[in-house]
Amino acid sequence: MKSNDVIAIFSQNMKELRVQKGLTQEELSFKAGIHRNYISDTERGRRNVSLKAVEKIAAGLGVTIQELFNNSTITK
Amino acid sequence: MKSNDVIAIFSQNMKELRVQKGLTQEELSFKAGIHRNYISDTERGRRNVSLKAVEKIAAGLGVTIQELFNNSTITK
Repeated sequence: MKSNDVIAIFSQNMKELRVQKGLTQEELSFKAGIHRNYISDTERGRRNVSLKAVEKIAAGLGVTIQELFNNSTITK
Repeated sequence: MKSNDVIAIFSQNMKELRVQKGLTQEELSFKAGIHRNYISDTERGRRNVSLKAVEKIAAGLGVTIQELFNNSTITK
């Protein structure tokens, strides 16, 4: 696993789950209690997110933390 | 899930997996490329670990990231 892979997997899963739930970044921002810019940067893989932020994102999305690390959707 | 729960689950799983693998904190430190004090603090739940550090710890332990978030061992 390369150094950016966990960030790539996390950000991709986060975006996919958000879209699946029919949430905009702004709605997720509100639910998670995280600034919209942080949500946007994280989905672009530009943040080395901390565990507390991971937890807030999972809670905002209504998913488990493990779902955010599920890499089965990464085919490359 | 309370604000410190993800840190508590992560740190407990990390310690359990390290002991299962028969590794000392110093050995894990070497394998993960993370300072021993950071390993020690993390196992005590004193660090809000980042994704990159989570990845290094998983690689050092030879486990998946999801195993580090498995909460089935938390019974309370």
